[in-house]
Amino acid sequence: MITDKSKPFKVKSAVIERLAKELKVVKGPLIVVHGGGSFGHPLASKYKIADGYKKKSQLMGISLTHRAMERLNSYLVEALQKVGIPAVAVQPSACAVADNGRIKLMQINPIKKMLSIGLVPVLYGDAVPDIDRGVSILSGDQIVAYMARKLGASKVILGVDVDGVYTSSPKKSNRAKLVRKITPADAELVASLGAAGTKDVTGGMKNKVMELLELAKLGIEAEIVNAAKPNVLREAIRGKCGIGTIISRGY
Amino acid sequence: MITDKSKPFKVKSAVIERLAKELKVVKGPLIVVHGGGSFGHPLASKYKIADGYKKKSQLMGISLTHRAMERLNSYLVEALQKVGIPAVAVQPSACAVADNGRIKLMQINPIKKMLSIGLVPVLYGDAVPDIDRGVSILSGDQIVAYMARKLGASKVILGVDVDGVYTSSPKKSNRAKLVRKITPADAELVASLGAAGTKDVTGGMKNKVMELLELAKLGIEAEIVNAAKPNVLREAIRGKCGIGTIISRGY
Repeated sequence: MITDKSKPFKVKSAVIERLAKELKVVKGPLIVVHGGGSFGHPLASKYKIADGYKKKSQLMGISLTHRAMERLNSYLVEALQKVGIPAVAVQPSACAVADNGRIKLMQINPIKKMLSIGLVPVLYGDAVPDIDRGVSILSGDQIVAYMARKLGASKVILGVDVDGVYTSSPKKSNRAKLVRKITPADAELVASLGAAGTKDVTGGMKNKVMELLELAKLGIEAEIVNAAKPNVLREAIRGKCGIGTIISRGY
Repeated sequence: MITDKSKPFKVKSAVIERLAKELKVVKGPLIVVHGGGSFGHPLASKYKIADGYKKKSQLMGISLTHRAMERLNSYLVEALQKVGIPAVAVQPSACAVADNGRIKLMQINPIKKMLSIGLVPVLYGDAVPDIDRGVSILSGDQIVAYMARKLGASKVILGVDVDGVYTSSPKKSNRAKLVRKITPADAELVASLGAAGTKDVTGGMKNKVMELLELAKLGIEAEIVNAAKPNVLREAIRGKCGIGTIISRGY
């Protein structure tokens, strides 16, 4: 949503600037996490980073993938700075090690300290060192769930470019139905969710829902909303109900 | 040396490209660390980051200082990529927390794993979270000493823009004498070394020598060489003797 997925390395500056403004309504501590869009995914896919480190030619691919993500991140950080939010990038591959694609260890003390003085950490999906695979892709979604759990987030909002979770892709089928609430009991629905297009190396909507369901089981509710529509993110932050899909424990 | 200190945010591209080429002669694992030059220092100085976090107006200063360092870092990373070195930035403020200006904890497992597969981590001086002060400046020099100790470096080379350590600043006095070797016994000499100009918030040559002496006590020798002169860094990497100042245990 913050990048033009039809063109590599192209940001949607107006969208990023609008989202930065909408984030200004957050009163307490805030962490921002974004995905790879047309920056990380094409490179990660080209160099097969998600398959792990297998041959030397992938090294430059890891280097380029991380640098692309840092570039995308810089657009967000600078947009946040412009509206007066003291954003600081936090590089996942500098503080986390995965094992088989899942976060094994992550140093979050720097983030905690940043939050305590009022800085706004901005994380992102990244190619991270992996104990088993050498390297793996750590999705922004997994980071969101991990951070929310570790820090006891009071609110988790995922902005996407559709109105929430649909029974099938609303971009491909007009029979797709928006689901208002998903709980751990909806295993069948979740299993039926399609993975995203081939360019998303992190699994699209299905992956988001699965990460958030793990969080929901711990009692941390999340909402998936259409941040591509102006003001939706702002309203979700303010607590307006029923504007997307709630992922909750259900009781 | 990699920036034009007379102008803010101006890199010396030709110097960076040359140094990237000279680094190509390294055979084994390599970590690159750079300082702030005209990117980090002016902002850190303007917002008094070295004094710690005292008022809200500093938050944007921390945000801007880190972003400036990231920008400078990106020039290095991209120059290294261009000569075929798979460089990956490693953000100190994402993995380290200081206490009173000294590294208190630092997650170095990502760096270890990167090195193990052949990536080249590129770290830099940064504004980092600080337990006591809220924020502090972590110099590239302190990072060098810390990493060398933790990873048991076989070789530590510091590139500066003079031929080594002088008895006084060679840029200000023509009586300045180059010192070929410094050991922990040279406390008097070290005490007499001047701090750098006002724009260097991390203490200049004196600080470098002090950090390296701590390392020397553990048996890890370092050399300060003039990397502003073509081929000097390359020759130092190859082990040529007597081209700068050696900091060693002395026995």
